[in-house]
Amino acid sequence: MNLAELARRLDAELVGPAELPVTGVGAPEEARPGQVVAAFDDAALVSAEAGPAAALVVGAEMSAAKPHLRVADPRAAFEQLLDLFAPPPPPPAGIHPRALVDPSAVIGAEPTLGPHAVIGPRVVLGDRCRIGANCVVGEAARLGNDVTLHANVTLYAGVELGDRVIVHSGAVLGADGFGYRSTAVGHVRVPHLGTVVLEDDVEVGANATIDRAKVGATRVGQGCKIDNLVLIAHNCRLGRHCLMVGQSALAGSVELGEGVVMAGQSGIADHLRVGDGAVVAGQAGVMKPLSPGARVAGSPALDQVEYFKQLAGLRRLRQLARRVEALERALGRTADDDAT
Amino acid sequence: MNLAELARRLDAELVGPAELPVTGVGAPEEARPGQVVAAFDDAALVSAEAGPAAALVVGAEMSAAKPHLRVADPRAAFEQLLDLFAPPPPPPAGIHPRALVDPSAVIGAEPTLGPHAVIGPRVVLGDRCRIGANCVVGEAARLGNDVTLHANVTLYAGVELGDRVIVHSGAVLGADGFGYRSTAVGHVRVPHLGTVVLEDDVEVGANATIDRAKVGATRVGQGCKIDNLVLIAHNCRLGRHCLMVGQSALAGSVELGEGVVMAGQSGIADHLRVGDGAVVAGQAGVMKPLSPGARVAGSPALDQVEYFKQLAGLRRLRQLARRVEALERALGRTADDDAT
Amino acid sequence: MNLAELARRLDAELVGPAELPVTGVGAPEEARPGQVVAAFDDAALVSAEAGPAAALVVGAEMSAAKPHLRVADPRAAFEQLLDLFAPPPPPPAGIHPRALVDPSAVIGAEPTLGPHAVIGPRVVLGDRCRIGANCVVGEAARLGNDVTLHANVTLYAGVELGDRVIVHSGAVLGADGFGYRSTAVGHVRVPHLGTVVLEDDVEVGANATIDRAKVGATRVGQGCKIDNLVLIAHNCRLGRHCLMVGQSALAGSVELGEGVVMAGQSGIADHLRVGDGAVVAGQAGVMKPLSPGARVAGSPALDQVEYFKQLAGLRRLRQLARRVEALERALGRTADDDAT
Repeated sequence: MNLAELARRLDAELVGPAELPVTGVGAPEEARPGQVVAAFDDAALVSAEAGPAAALVVGAEMSAAKPHLRVADPRAAFEQLLDLFAPPPPPPAGIHPRALVDPSAVIGAEPTLGPHAVIGPRVVLGDRCRIGANCVVGEAARLGNDVTLHANVTLYAGVELGDRVIVHSGAVLGADGFGYRSTAVGHVRVPHLGTVVLEDDVEVGANATIDRAKVGATRVGQGCKIDNLVLIAHNCRLGRHCLMVGQSALAGSVELGEGVVMAGQSGIADHLRVGDGAVVAGQAGVMKPLSPGARVAGSPALDQVEYFKQLAGLRRLRQLARRVEALERALGRTADDDAT
Repeated sequence: MNLAELARRLDAELVGPAELPVTGVGAPEEARPGQVVAAFDDAALVSAEAGPAAALVVGAEMSAAKPHLRVADPRAAFEQLLDLFAPPPPPPAGIHPRALVDPSAVIGAEPTLGPHAVIGPRVVLGDRCRIGANCVVGEAARLGNDVTLHANVTLYAGVELGDRVIVHSGAVLGADGFGYRSTAVGHVRVPHLGTVVLEDDVEVGANATIDRAKVGATRVGQGCKIDNLVLIAHNCRLGRHCLMVGQSALAGSVELGEGVVMAGQSGIADHLRVGDGAVVAGQAGVMKPLSPGARVAGSPALDQVEYFKQLAGLRRLRQLARRVEALERALGRTADDDAT
Repeated sequence: MNLAELARRLDAELVGPAELPVTGVGAPEEARPGQVVAAFDDAALVSAEAGPAAALVVGAEMSAAKPHLRVADPRAAFEQLLDLFAPPPPPPAGIHPRALVDPSAVIGAEPTLGPHAVIGPRVVLGDRCRIGANCVVGEAARLGNDVTLHANVTLYAGVELGDRVIVHSGAVLGADGFGYRSTAVGHVRVPHLGTVVLEDDVEVGANATIDRAKVGATRVGQGCKIDNLVLIAHNCRLGRHCLMVGQSALAGSVELGEGVVMAGQSGIADHLRVGDGAVVAGQAGVMKPLSPGARVAGSPALDQVEYFKQLAGLRRLRQLARRVEALERALGRTADDDAT
């Protein structure tokens, strides 16, 4: 790819040599020779100019010493660059001789199974699945087409994944839920006979955990994206296109509507229902059901507007106390007269 | 099992054909044909009636169109159903030819060792242990009888597990504690020469981590249940029957008494002692020692009653500010007269 | 080692038989015969005296019935004991016959590669690297000298580790960042073409995750120590010698200066810059950039002094309300007169 071709693809104004070859896209602080760098602000521009990048992408109002492409929206252009330079998926590699596939498993067309992957009895893999090294796929798990398990993923028995699901390394799907009966002799495990279902296009981050249901399924709706270290407990049900950001958590039997967003480190208490499109702020702790479109923050979580008013009140609390003192002085009273 | 047999086992009133076969227990929203479903409320009843379930379990005051069993306590009956339909543990499967067992390891009777499991030198496994695929059991670790490690568990050298311990996938027991000496040239690791001991009947959730002690042991008492993604730092000591819910954490050298409950995403600062039966609410952050039976919430954690009073005060804070303004107006003052 | 030798090394006063053999260092509550125990307080002393420890280390003002060493600073002496009794690293063990090394990988001198470790194409390992059992090192990853990966670590393709890096079990380095474009048909993955770079002397805890950058590198500076279950999102950049304690998290593109400390369960929102030496308290949630040396607490995080004042104000809130009531009574008003 050369700079002129790139200008054409990004619908950009070309300032520099048309034939300049571009080999990839880099970061302002750590570009490599031949790369193009998108500079969103002056600091990035300075870094990129100082480094070995071949060319820059800048906003309409910016200019640069290096060859550059001027675009209306540098952030959108940057994402286009990522798409342009993303490597194509490697061709299917077949079943590695050190993968272990139970004879009763059914493997779809064009598989890629890494070394030491273990495919249990009666597992069904769709076409073009990619199972990373050292993954374990438990008995009777069912995977759709074009599923990717990165290395070291664990699926317990019976877990079901739709088409195009991606699971990152270390994620564990289908472990027994945290359910015990407390008795005189201690906590006794309640059997978890259900499973986990991830619908089509779900992605699960590294070291996330999604537990199996007592009965039926813990279900993650189509297109949901689950970040690293997220916890989804037994019997939760997520509607389509929810986002759960890093370290957020759902306690048991939570129901999310469609398009719910849980920011980082937030949590929802058990058995609550959250309406479509609700947004839970970072570190918020939801203790009550949420209506569709609700925006909440704080722990316990409040409506966001109410939450910000409380924060403002807190910031003025000392001033309020001084005003009360002033009133007490004006009335010739002290705080202790009859207040305690 | 048929419906009459099930009625007898649940001590239920039978409404429907005695001979109806029942093959399992399902969820209201996703039952399969042949399953029995426990409906706790009208919404579940409607779901279950609409699906292919063979029969229902309902409360004494409910009725149903499908064949059903009427019971005094549907939730208790549901747990009985789980126990009834839980599959028996599979028979011991022996040592898989692709498991790797050091010649100096001692393996008890009736083992089940999965493929690619690695059993290090001088490890001792009790009888009937089940070691999942791709587990790594470090040198000189000692496991009691009837221990289950699900797939992809890591035990560092020297870790000790009692009888009937269950460890879920991705959990890591015995990593070095987060202990460094800060010096002029940086943070220098303090050697951790101790270990981790899980007493009998402990269960550890997926991707949880329990670090080894500097000396002696990080000790988890008999019957404790540790949920997914929980962190127990070096040198903690948990009494018997504690519950740590998902993503909760203990910093170094915390001591929990017996029966302590840590709700989800809560944490306890280092070196604190928590008395028997204390309950820490979700997302709470404990910064002080807790007495037996304490119930705390908030960050920093307060006695729960005090916490709820503070929350109530916060909710009334704007009203309080308006009352102060009214007083100022009544006295012909403004907030700025002498308050600042 | 005997007691006299130990006294000499710790610069301690010897009280007891010089020839007494000492085999290791133990904990007050769980010492083994032959071990020396450091007792920092009376409770520890009583425990240690009651157990089978061979000898004690105590402060200058303490005495003991067992043979003991009296030192000025028992905590410093304890750390010296840990160093003294830390076992030497085992000799290099070579490449296990069940490790799988791609023919295009370059392995340095004196390697130790465990069974089922998978070393991908074009990987470069420095000298004396130790790769634990069941680790997966992705294509073209580069490791410096003296790197240790404990069992079950996953490095995605292209990840770069400096010299003496240590990564604990279950950690995942280089997974795709949580970056999607939200479109009419759902969230679409943004390609992540960058990588993860850990500079020299970094240590990463069990089950931590560090995501790859969109372009360039998510970079962890020299000497940083990252605890268990920590999340570092795409494109973060950490200066040298930062500490991130268990379950803390950085959202995308956060920049930490040098020597920043994040206490347990704290988090920083995306794209923020944190100055050198800033300290973030446990469970704090940082929503604004932090100056060098800042000390913050709370969620949203405030300057620590301001935070403690707010907490104090909260504790006095009910008293303030009573004072306002008293003023209202003194003026013959009620709360409802005109306040609402």
